[in-house]
Amino acid sequence: MTGEDRDEGFPRNPRSILIKNALTLKKNRVDVYIENGVISEMKNRDRGEKIGVEADFVVDASDKIVMPGLVNTHTHAAMTLLRGYADDMELQPWLEKKIWPAEARLTPELVYWGTRLACLEMIKTGTLIFNDMYFYMEEVAKAVEDCGMKALLGYGMIDLFSEEKREEEIKKTEDFVSFVKNLGSPRIKAAVAPHAIYTVSDEGLRWCAEFAEEKDLAIHIHVSETRKEVEDSIAKYGESPVRHLHKLGVLTPKTVAAHSVWLDDTDIRIYRQSGVWPSHSPVSNMKLAVGKNMPYREMRSAGIKPTLGTDGTASNNNLDMFESMKFAALLQKLGGNPTVLPAEETVEMATEWGAMALGFKSGILGEGYPADIILLDTQRPEMTPLHNPFSLVVYSASGSVVDTAICDGQILMYKRAVPGEKEVLEKASLAAKKMLSGN
Amino acid sequence: MTGEDRDEGFPRNPRSILIKNALTLKKNRVDVYIENGVISEMKNRDRGEKIGVEADFVVDASDKIVMPGLVNTHTHAAMTLLRGYADDMELQPWLEKKIWPAEARLTPELVYWGTRLACLEMIKTGTLIFNDMYFYMEEVAKAVEDCGMKALLGYGMIDLFSEEKREEEIKKTEDFVSFVKNLGSPRIKAAVAPHAIYTVSDEGLRWCAEFAEEKDLAIHIHVSETRKEVEDSIAKYGESPVRHLHKLGVLTPKTVAAHSVWLDDTDIRIYRQSGVWPSHSPVSNMKLAVGKNMPYREMRSAGIKPTLGTDGTASNNNLDMFESMKFAALLQKLGGNPTVLPAEETVEMATEWGAMALGFKSGILGEGYPADIILLDTQRPEMTPLHNPFSLVVYSASGSVVDTAICDGQILMYKRAVPGEKEVLEKASLAAKKMLSGN
Repeated sequence: MTGEDRDEGFPRNPRSILIKNALTLKKNRVDVYIENGVISEMKNRDRGEKIGVEADFVVDASDKIVMPGLVNTHTHAAMTLLRGYADDMELQPWLEKKIWPAEARLTPELVYWGTRLACLEMIKTGTLIFNDMYFYMEEVAKAVEDCGMKALLGYGMIDLFSEEKREEEIKKTEDFVSFVKNLGSPRIKAAVAPHAIYTVSDEGLRWCAEFAEEKDLAIHIHVSETRKEVEDSIAKYGESPVRHLHKLGVLTPKTVAAHSVWLDDTDIRIYRQSGVWPSHSPVSNMKLAVGKNMPYREMRSAGIKPTLGTDGTASNNNLDMFESMKFAALLQKLGGNPTVLPAEETVEMATEWGAMALGFKSGILGEGYPADIILLDTQRPEMTPLHNPFSLVVYSASGSVVDTAICDGQILMYKRAVPGEKEVLEKASLAAKKMLSGN
Repeated sequence: MTGEDRDEGFPRNPRSILIKNALTLKKNRVDVYIENGVISEMKNRDRGEKIGVEADFVVDASDKIVMPGLVNTHTHAAMTLLRGYADDMELQPWLEKKIWPAEARLTPELVYWGTRLACLEMIKTGTLIFNDMYFYMEEVAKAVEDCGMKALLGYGMIDLFSEEKREEEIKKTEDFVSFVKNLGSPRIKAAVAPHAIYTVSDEGLRWCAEFAEEKDLAIHIHVSETRKEVEDSIAKYGESPVRHLHKLGVLTPKTVAAHSVWLDDTDIRIYRQSGVWPSHSPVSNMKLAVGKNMPYREMRSAGIKPTLGTDGTASNNNLDMFESMKFAALLQKLGGNPTVLPAEETVEMATEWGAMALGFKSGILGEGYPADIILLDTQRPEMTPLHNPFSLVVYSASGSVVDTAICDGQILMYKRAVPGEKEVLEKASLAAKKMLSGN
């Protein structure tokens, strides 16, 4: 948090927090005790139990739902600066005429404020952990650290099949991994993040696989987002992107494969065997018109646990995981089966499975787990009546129902107030103007 | 408004309102003067103009976007009581085992509080005008009147092909039309609302067409929502629902045809020739897995202006038209073309075209138009940066960005406070419990 923040009327880092009488998604009334960042005790009031111990900070949650914070497994946070800058365009002109020229004007400062804006939006909509791939990642790490969130961060390697550029990109990846190590934050982890099969050479991808194995790092990569990507891969390598990446060693139990839309049965079997985590971005897929829905049912049949991401705000255009949950559940139903991806499973995608994919012990409301918790306000029309909290969360709510956000026991938002919000909005607005004007 | 409401710190019905320095969707800075419920004057500050006259109530809108209130052209408002009661089910068991048995326990009081909850949710998410089809419509009219909104209301006629029931339903429709006439509210209009071709006999539908013509009323009906509906119609009548309804005289320039998903080219030509207004409900269509997307491009090519609806909350499960705008725009793109239904046109669907469909002079921010206006808060992460207000409205915002709602010059919400909100949430929660327990 920055020094200028005004006092928001709540302690940011109390040693202990007692959340009293909250409603769980399964409609139990519970007390939750948090000590040193961990859920140390939970009591079920429906069984007549309650927590009597006092705490540094006590929250009366009688009109709140308590649930794990959400986990966004694929985004490019600093792209908030390009929110609404270009929409409703074909993919190639959108990238070539709009997004890439703007990104060429990025600076460390712009990335810092773009990421701060993203973190603010995520906190306000209940996301506490995210997986990011972008540039100037040291600035992203600083922003995450300043906001109190958790993240898996990878420098977006793009060598464009040039040996010279590859060496530069390898250096940047190594430097960022060292930076994160030196930062020593328990909330920030480094990933290796080759952008995609069509922007990184085989040599680059093989280096990523080996470096990730050597340093025991996660891998974050775009896979089979569009039909063109698959067709080009078959034309160039004689095989699908998944088979090719598998051969190069890129698909591991710590790999997050963003999009994973255009997969065939063999690709899905490879995912299962190699332990890859697909990250589904339904909103981005629809907006960019990738033409197909991620094969969710086939993945589930194969025993895979798909996770959920927003993608960057240039192709979404928000970071609201509540909205993404609804899009995911409804997009699966569209084809003709309303029973696919029910509400409870959608919440699992966005919490427990996402946390597993990113290697964080989180996404579960239980004793011994880190206190990564959000409280939802039920005193709102869209949250009334309270027949089924899972349904309300997935089908009725937007992220604006989130009242309180606690990450590792630190209070990031209370009664919708986030310290430093005004400064972030101002600085990010200025940064967005700079990015487009180039001044 | 009810007598118990506490004072929310703003006048509900000032004679004049001055909205200062608001940003329009086209990024002009304007002053808007409202007198006796009408936008009497607008000045463009970018041209150095401003309004100097004082007003009873002045709003500094320097950090607000001003736009017309949204128009929801298809819903069943009181179904808020069933929000989250049953999801992720096949259509027939969902209707037969869950929705219909619950609806059989409806009472006038339950419908009143369900509708109040719906109106509260609509006001809080920027919808000022809606088109409703349900039961105990006198109660719906009272709720709308008490909330200050505008609505087109029709009793949902279902004769199930029985002559006896038809006579009862005709009587109920006639009674409700008289009720609305006697109510004499400038904000409430009556429609004739035969439910659908598969629940109303030809005799019933023909009566509706004649009665609507005689009384110069709008018609509200479900048309071609599912493939089964079309196949059954062809089996029974030898023609599609659209052709059959056309023959019976139900399709008029005042007819709102909800869903209109499974249409062929001839159906679309009939819509165009008869002047029918399609109401698209993308969220409901996806959730109930109707299996196809409304043929938006084909409708536009034929010169039709499609409008937007949420459908009832049992199949959505909210009334947030901002969310429905995003679903509509993205669902059209999904097939493979990201340029279809761009943001600006999506806003037209949800404002101007919707108002035309329901026969209200509204949906346009201009001198001489009724003051049906909403102000959006731009000081939020998802509304930052301000590159393109249209894009923010459709792709980034949820209804929670709405700060102020003015309908016919009456202030329904100011700084997100709606008079009587707490009472509505309490009474509607109790009503929902009653509906499910049957007590």
